[in-house]
Amino acid sequence: MTSALQSYLEAHDADARDLLVRLCRQPSVSAQHLGMGEMAALVEQLLAAAGFTTERFAVPDAPPIIFGERKGRSPYTLLLYNHYDVQPPEPFELWDSPPFEPTIRDGKLFAHGASDNKSEIAARLSAIHALLATEGDLPITLKWIIEGEEEVGSSHFEDIIAPHRQRLTADACLWEGAGFDVQGRPELGLGSKGLLYVQLDVQCLSRDAHSGGAPVLPSAAWRLVQALATLKDASGRITIPGFHDAVRPPSEAQIAALREQPVMDEEMKVTYGVERFVDGLTGHDLFVRQAFAPTCNIAGLESGYTGEGSKTVLPAKAMAKIDFRLVPDQEPGDILAKLRAHLDAQGYRDIQITTSETAEPVVTPLEAPIVRHIAAIAESFEGKRPSITPLSGGTLPLLGALKRQVGVPGLSAPGNATYYGNLMHSPNEHIRLADLARAVRFNCHMFAQLGA
Amino acid sequence: MTSALQSYLEAHDADARDLLVRLCRQPSVSAQHLGMGEMAALVEQLLAAAGFTTERFAVPDAPPIIFGERKGRSPYTLLLYNHYDVQPPEPFELWDSPPFEPTIRDGKLFAHGASDNKSEIAARLSAIHALLATEGDLPITLKWIIEGEEEVGSSHFEDIIAPHRQRLTADACLWEGAGFDVQGRPELGLGSKGLLYVQLDVQCLSRDAHSGGAPVLPSAAWRLVQALATLKDASGRITIPGFHDAVRPPSEAQIAALREQPVMDEEMKVTYGVERFVDGLTGHDLFVRQAFAPTCNIAGLESGYTGEGSKTVLPAKAMAKIDFRLVPDQEPGDILAKLRAHLDAQGYRDIQITTSETAEPVVTPLEAPIVRHIAAIAESFEGKRPSITPLSGGTLPLLGALKRQVGVPGLSAPGNATYYGNLMHSPNEHIRLADLARAVRFNCHMFAQLGA
Repeated sequence: MTSALQSYLEAHDADARDLLVRLCRQPSVSAQHLGMGEMAALVEQLLAAAGFTTERFAVPDAPPIIFGERKGRSPYTLLLYNHYDVQPPEPFELWDSPPFEPTIRDGKLFAHGASDNKSEIAARLSAIHALLATEGDLPITLKWIIEGEEEVGSSHFEDIIAPHRQRLTADACLWEGAGFDVQGRPELGLGSKGLLYVQLDVQCLSRDAHSGGAPVLPSAAWRLVQALATLKDASGRITIPGFHDAVRPPSEAQIAALREQPVMDEEMKVTYGVERFVDGLTGHDLFVRQAFAPTCNIAGLESGYTGEGSKTVLPAKAMAKIDFRLVPDQEPGDILAKLRAHLDAQGYRDIQITTSETAEPVVTPLEAPIVRHIAAIAESFEGKRPSITPLSGGTLPLLGALKRQVGVPGLSAPGNATYYGNLMHSPNEHIRLADLARAVRFNCHMFAQLGA
Repeated sequence: MTSALQSYLEAHDADARDLLVRLCRQPSVSAQHLGMGEMAALVEQLLAAAGFTTERFAVPDAPPIIFGERKGRSPYTLLLYNHYDVQPPEPFELWDSPPFEPTIRDGKLFAHGASDNKSEIAARLSAIHALLATEGDLPITLKWIIEGEEEVGSSHFEDIIAPHRQRLTADACLWEGAGFDVQGRPELGLGSKGLLYVQLDVQCLSRDAHSGGAPVLPSAAWRLVQALATLKDASGRITIPGFHDAVRPPSEAQIAALREQPVMDEEMKVTYGVERFVDGLTGHDLFVRQAFAPTCNIAGLESGYTGEGSKTVLPAKAMAKIDFRLVPDQEPGDILAKLRAHLDAQGYRDIQITTSETAEPVVTPLEAPIVRHIAAIAESFEGKRPSITPLSGGTLPLLGALKRQVGVPGLSAPGNATYYGNLMHSPNEHIRLADLARAVRFNCHMFAQLGA
């Protein structure tokens, strides 16, 4: 880092924070259509102020993607991805300060979206301003797409970018950022799991009956419970025939990468109030399972009377929401077909399956040149080896669309201010201001090195 | 029936309807503490107006039992039981006329509580007035208890009556009434099933997690589903060890009584929108199963996200409400102990069981003198053989308390205006006015015959 840049960052150490405050003060709840127009305008204005030519990519009835482009000294082109929407902030009563009134306490900035992912927009923008101020232009060419539907499954993302796919070509893509781990090592994320989210509905009666009829009337709740019980065996293994067929085992390099990460057992135990993880896993085995096991999770379950006390009802209907997290090379469509075939074979043809989300797993190999390149840059930042997650437990539906439409290899790098305790998606979401400053420095370093 | 009585009933054919309108106009929702004081006062006033000496039996924080007594010509003493409370009337929007504004359409009176069981109070009172008007006194001695908590499980019933048990002794007890079946045969009900209503709660995390953690974090929803699945086998048989040990098989006479009832398959199919009953049962086999099978019903099920669309959550908690209907000689305490032992043995010590209702099964044998006596009286009413249900699918928790405290043998007889389509406990609950008039006549006949 040049001394000019260093001096600039010291003199402007409040810039990123002020930018983040501006971004967080504007509500942008995609699920509730709250503030989305204002937020898109703010993002476009901020990109333009950083010298980007901007454009809106849009389809009807969806918040636009803000696209910006700024040429740099080198033809090396980096595609940046972010989103300007946030999850619903409810329950309000659990927030110590209002979710859209950014508040600083104990060196932390509390606001909804502060971590996910407005801090990354602020950190990237601040780094760009610093580079422009000290060097007059950017070391590399940047293209930047900032969408407004990530928190609702990026439902129009592919439709929106498809007509503009040529515009998005780049040497590499930086997805939503990672942060620094508990040892201060820069995190790199190489992929996310696929997702098949379905609702199972079963109805056995046209209306709820008095439970006195239970000896002779069919029960939707029992039918659902018994159908669900066929999806997993007692050991927790998913028993849908063919479910694991396409699972590609992790490579030795991927497992080795996980074994280099700091063990997090105690932090996770405290966070979730558990004494023991599935199958008694500990340490690095926990990471390997976390990264490479596909799942069949019950996200929701409902039938009959769920209020206080007792009501003797035989419910007409029962419902379960199930999310399957998929690993390479599982495909959501194939898993859906296998689920249907399994339920049919078990005698549950009457259970209706409605799909609400699908996403394919996307993984950039450890051996990809962009991964080696960014890893080397990350290590040169503060001399610490990066902590690499070959496959994360979550899902970014947009990655599949990006892969299909643009095909550029991507990863997450520590461009934002996330850390383990950030309470992302929860009341009192926050970032640590020191992490934000480090994220600005990291971005400056990374952009400069990519242009070197 | 004397011709004087007959003339009186013809001249006063609107009396029972007017009484019922008065009773139904007064809301009395025990679960919501709505109108209970006013309703108790109205009931006491109506008993007093029929020449009963009245008294309130009460414990703190519960609606009182109204007790009334009136001596008759014969020392034969009949204890009548009714309740003046109703279920919550919600959902209001499904009522064609407001639940507490009695409305007559097509010869039917629509109001909440019209069938269950204000019509029986009206019919019994009207019969008493008719007998008093035409004969000057009653043929038998009547004692009458009318409680205010039947719809919330008669939770204080035993505490309330215990100090007054001597006052309640009688030759027989008539419980809440039955009606006439589809062939116009008088119905007799000889008992009700026991009940064990429990809530199962399981918590595996201190807070909901992102479902990306599903590979390693324990799932409350899966644990509950798998625990529930151990309670029944694929054929629907309850698999809790010892659950059936105390089940007394029905007697041949009980089965024969059920085989005399009119087949109701088509009516039940229409009512519940089903094409097929459990195990393909039809006709009288359906009645036998309905009457004598104990059940394990899932009345409620809840975990995680149950709203629209998708939320990828791994729920911290899961809950099921289960009601067991018990047959002679099963005991709720014994079944609870067996449920606990079974869950423990299956590895589910962490599943918490909370009991919210218990009741023992109570059955008066077909061979009991009171049954033979009332059956003969019922047959002499219009010459039709009574339709006898040896054990009903529902539960009257008060019967166990009556049995323990007073010990008088009881049954239900067609003293009220229920019929198969009355929509009891549902919007548009109603009675047919012709049934109400018949119920008044039946009560006159029964009281007179018991005194003969």
